[in-house]
Amino acid sequence: MKRVGVAVAGLGRIGRVHAEILSYRVENARLVAVMDVVEDLARSTAEKLKVKAYTDYDKLLRDGEVDAVFVTTPTYLHHDMIVRALEAGKHVFTEKPITVTVDEAVDVVRKAEKAGLKLMVGYMRRFDAAYEEARRRILSGEIGRPVAFLNIARDPGAPPGWAQDPKLSGGIFLDMLSHDFDMARFLVGSEVRKVYVSGAAVLYDEIRAKGDLDLVNVNFEFENGVYGVLHGSRKSVFGYDLRTEVLGTEGTVYVGSHVDPNLAIGVKSGVVFRGVQWFWARFYDAYVREDQAFIDSILNDTHPPISGLDGLRVVEIAEACWKSVREGRPVDVERRT
Amino acid sequence: MKRVGVAVAGLGRIGRVHAEILSYRVENARLVAVMDVVEDLARSTAEKLKVKAYTDYDKLLRDGEVDAVFVTTPTYLHHDMIVRALEAGKHVFTEKPITVTVDEAVDVVRKAEKAGLKLMVGYMRRFDAAYEEARRRILSGEIGRPVAFLNIARDPGAPPGWAQDPKLSGGIFLDMLSHDFDMARFLVGSEVRKVYVSGAAVLYDEIRAKGDLDLVNVNFEFENGVYGVLHGSRKSVFGYDLRTEVLGTEGTVYVGSHVDPNLAIGVKSGVVFRGVQWFWARFYDAYVREDQAFIDSILNDTHPPISGLDGLRVVEIAEACWKSVREGRPVDVERRT
Amino acid sequence: MKRVGVAVAGLGRIGRVHAEILSYRVENARLVAVMDVVEDLARSTAEKLKVKAYTDYDKLLRDGEVDAVFVTTPTYLHHDMIVRALEAGKHVFTEKPITVTVDEAVDVVRKAEKAGLKLMVGYMRRFDAAYEEARRRILSGEIGRPVAFLNIARDPGAPPGWAQDPKLSGGIFLDMLSHDFDMARFLVGSEVRKVYVSGAAVLYDEIRAKGDLDLVNVNFEFENGVYGVLHGSRKSVFGYDLRTEVLGTEGTVYVGSHVDPNLAIGVKSGVVFRGVQWFWARFYDAYVREDQAFIDSILNDTHPPISGLDGLRVVEIAEACWKSVREGRPVDVERRT
Amino acid sequence: MKRVGVAVAGLGRIGRVHAEILSYRVENARLVAVMDVVEDLARSTAEKLKVKAYTDYDKLLRDGEVDAVFVTTPTYLHHDMIVRALEAGKHVFTEKPITVTVDEAVDVVRKAEKAGLKLMVGYMRRFDAAYEEARRRILSGEIGRPVAFLNIARDPGAPPGWAQDPKLSGGIFLDMLSHDFDMARFLVGSEVRKVYVSGAAVLYDEIRAKGDLDLVNVNFEFENGVYGVLHGSRKSVFGYDLRTEVLGTEGTVYVGSHVDPNLAIGVKSGVVFRGVQWFWARFYDAYVREDQAFIDSILNDTHPPISGLDGLRVVEIAEACWKSVREGRPVDVERRT
Repeated sequence: MKRVGVAVAGLGRIGRVHAEILSYRVENARLVAVMDVVEDLARSTAEKLKVKAYTDYDKLLRDGEVDAVFVTTPTYLHHDMIVRALEAGKHVFTEKPITVTVDEAVDVVRKAEKAGLKLMVGYMRRFDAAYEEARRRILSGEIGRPVAFLNIARDPGAPPGWAQDPKLSGGIFLDMLSHDFDMARFLVGSEVRKVYVSGAAVLYDEIRAKGDLDLVNVNFEFENGVYGVLHGSRKSVFGYDLRTEVLGTEGTVYVGSHVDPNLAIGVKSGVVFRGVQWFWARFYDAYVREDQAFIDSILNDTHPPISGLDGLRVVEIAEACWKSVREGRPVDVERRT
Repeated sequence: MKRVGVAVAGLGRIGRVHAEILSYRVENARLVAVMDVVEDLARSTAEKLKVKAYTDYDKLLRDGEVDAVFVTTPTYLHHDMIVRALEAGKHVFTEKPITVTVDEAVDVVRKAEKAGLKLMVGYMRRFDAAYEEARRRILSGEIGRPVAFLNIARDPGAPPGWAQDPKLSGGIFLDMLSHDFDMARFLVGSEVRKVYVSGAAVLYDEIRAKGDLDLVNVNFEFENGVYGVLHGSRKSVFGYDLRTEVLGTEGTVYVGSHVDPNLAIGVKSGVVFRGVQWFWARFYDAYVREDQAFIDSILNDTHPPISGLDGLRVVEIAEACWKSVREGRPVDVERRT
Repeated sequence: MKRVGVAVAGLGRIGRVHAEILSYRVENARLVAVMDVVEDLARSTAEKLKVKAYTDYDKLLRDGEVDAVFVTTPTYLHHDMIVRALEAGKHVFTEKPITVTVDEAVDVVRKAEKAGLKLMVGYMRRFDAAYEEARRRILSGEIGRPVAFLNIARDPGAPPGWAQDPKLSGGIFLDMLSHDFDMARFLVGSEVRKVYVSGAAVLYDEIRAKGDLDLVNVNFEFENGVYGVLHGSRKSVFGYDLRTEVLGTEGTVYVGSHVDPNLAIGVKSGVVFRGVQWFWARFYDAYVREDQAFIDSILNDTHPPISGLDGLRVVEIAEACWKSVREGRPVDVERRT
Repeated sequence: MKRVGVAVAGLGRIGRVHAEILSYRVENARLVAVMDVVEDLARSTAEKLKVKAYTDYDKLLRDGEVDAVFVTTPTYLHHDMIVRALEAGKHVFTEKPITVTVDEAVDVVRKAEKAGLKLMVGYMRRFDAAYEEARRRILSGEIGRPVAFLNIARDPGAPPGWAQDPKLSGGIFLDMLSHDFDMARFLVGSEVRKVYVSGAAVLYDEIRAKGDLDLVNVNFEFENGVYGVLHGSRKSVFGYDLRTEVLGTEGTVYVGSHVDPNLAIGVKSGVVFRGVQWFWARFYDAYVREDQAFIDSILNDTHPPISGLDGLRVVEIAEACWKSVREGRPVDVERRT
């Protein structure tokens, strides 16, 4: 295989980003087809990128030019689509989170392993230059032994449509904060073993109505003795607010900022900075490098840098968080494999 | 009484700061005497400030020129010294925390009330221009309804001597983080009703040996539905690191910074900012205004802006934190009066 | 013409960026060919982008599929290549600066006008979101009447090869600071009428040897009474340092920062921020939007947003700067058309 | 002489600051008297500080307890008052600038020298921790060889009363920017040899009416080959804006910031930072250390750290600036001694 034939299944915003990237930014990738159940969307995207359009996933999976499938549909469809892709002998890249439940995650991890196919999960922050450099510096020992992980994550607004239903999306812990849990594991280099959550739905009525939360503070402990704390909110009026710190015995690493320093206006009330742009702009390059890494792992037959197991670990943490919410107490994270 | 005669009892660093401030920066205050059991310290300070020197607290309390006593000794001496000052008919300003235990705090609050004497506790951050302005803006409704309180507090190093013994100092929750709990109550305008703590002594052997903690993440809930999170560490290699946020439904207030923007050097490795100076410099003006407020409350016979009850509330929170540490679960804050 | 056929002539770094952008990021553009005198470079780029390769500019100009040429060669070749493209009936986008001399600039401006062909100059900062927003705010009156323009521009290092020879590149004023002069005109909305320069070659021997400068402070006045000051340096050890301010009677607009706030490390020496990335990363989106604007101006037959006259104005300023350097006095900017 | 008896002559804002500092913050100083022609001001200040009050400068100079006089009157009175103090055998500390004209400055420098009395000029920024540290780092070689000095100085508003008349205050170059010229000399460690000014009175009618300027860009060269640029404005709507940079061959030092990072509010329009507080707060400690240094130089009979000659140098620069304004060309700074 000289170039990997890929198809993108699910053409919402994130699917179109992957399709665009795969069509011209990734070495050795060849975008073969795109698929969406909305025919117009499938057709217009395919035309623009000069590839085949499918509205039927099974037909896509029967396309012999397709070596790997990008699953970029809503979370609740992941499990079924991943399983069918694996059965069809395709490598799979799935957007985060891997699945809604731990059981589903265990299932796809095992099936990928058994089939000897690649399965990668899209926690693209790992490919962002700042987070990557942060990790390098932590590993280099610059900050001594890590002792605490801190994270503030605020989305500008409530998620759209299906993502408001925790049964379909996994709720705030999976849909939004799974990125932060993955980053915690990536930077601290250890597994989370206990979580305690306080929080509620205090920002949006529609979120409360669906049984999800929109404001949480998560207290957690890692196996290596690091203590973490994560504040998440579904509202930030001036823009995306994402800040991460790792405190070590000899220093601290800071990633992210609540302001964009590139434009400010000084008026009577003070100096006004813009908020940071929403994550598409912030992380575009990370998506490019992530997709490249997946293609490379197929061509070189190496482990994808974010494995199905990485995906499972985060779902385990999210389930522990929900249990902590229900029971009002700290909860051990149950590890399944 | 045209000017309030004051004495400072306990001439460690903080006592000397109060003595200096009271001797020339506070309107209508007259520093009459200073006291310390270390005779040289009492004498040299008295000479410099041209006031009387005492080494015996009882003699100080019998001094008819003294209307009010500043108790600036180690925490474990507070209860006894406050009680004796009240019995001698003196108003009392005590450095934070008010006492080591809730029982002691309840006792001094009641005795001050019964005696009709002023009792104020030194949470000077309330008089810092930035925190004060933050509160004004929160109260003005600029950020909508507050929903979360976040606080990062890192001291540059371990506390000295007696303060390492939690039996004498109350440990990290009282000795260090009581400032942050007071600020939480001040900015959120509500009482803390539940706390959950994770943390350990991972930075200093001497702290672990004494049974105290040096790294904690505290998760807490306020009666008005605000969710708080507090990260505290006894180590910050580049300087004092104190940052507070209150998130509301319509905005956020940020207080504090991890860097001093006033000096930076750009070299090959990047642009290096200095850390923020230790709290004496950061909060000197706050100490001045705090002392003034106490003197004013005596002269105008008004409630001191930080009451004995405020002091008690923080000790209640700290005791709940210790209970959470011991029992590994969230704990309700028991209110005593 | 439904889609504009374009060719990129000159495949140095900036040429390859335009070629890449034109091949997949610009609506209604169709990259037809690339050209470079280095055959390998022409061929490999063409292969990657699946377009024709030329090594002979005349052959390129005879290609009927080419409607517009991007001139991305060294500055000293611009005049000749622009003239020949116009003679061949092609629209021209030229990288900045438009030409080395005012005479040349006047010539190409006139020829484009006479031929009724588009001529646009690549001052891409005008398409950067921050600069654009800055201009909007200035025009909206938020800062009152502008009174001063300030600019600090520091490149990480000396320019390569030919650009070190001021006869070929126009020297520091054209090769590097022409961006800043263009931005001055863009933000202030007025022409520069007088300049005074002090500066020297104090950083690089090779620059001094060629008769160019590497450190300059330019003092300038605009026709509308705004006073400008521009500091330029060919060295900045921690990265690209570009900061612009416009002071008005009621406020100030700040664009740019000397640090990237997205990654910092706090160690004993302080908190170390990374410098800002070199301009490819900072301005990639601006290049995309700039190329789109050129294509749109052709399709809609409108004036390109950065005209040949804009390009000429900057060369006039640069010539006045050189005159000021030679004569050691303030010099009026002579306007030619 | 064990303690230096001092008097403060001129009880405007800056005079009262020195009086307050001298009365209790300076080791080995004894404030003996204060003097102002406004009797009420003299009396009330004296009462507050428990010292003698004078309204007659000659009587003050005859006071045998007074060893040193602080001249804190409007600039146009400096020369006469310094001369008379020297004739009375008193050491002199004068607020900046030393005098209005170069002739006057030369005169007082010579007379102090002849009399063998100390003469110090109050450029307090030299005692500010940030500027001091900046100098240390420059001298240590951290930034290599200095090549450029940059300074932005914006006052919040027009100066009061007499200071608007350049005949009495020396105008913007002496009254406001003399601090910046002194800092240039301090940080660069070399003398200014040439200046070029552009600027005008564009902010305040009253300033234009008096023949002063309120917006200037000064381009200057140092004897050691460093190139400087100084932007000054009498208006900054959100607060004091003072930023200084020294660029070297191996790095850059930044001093000052346009914002106070200690309070920000994030609202829909962005994140709003407060401006920096006006210089009293910013530089209070610097005033304390400055006064201490003067007292020390008397007691130890050493050269004051900011000499009369330092004061003269700045007046020479300011005169050159005025000449550049009048003649519209670069002007050499004429050195008189």
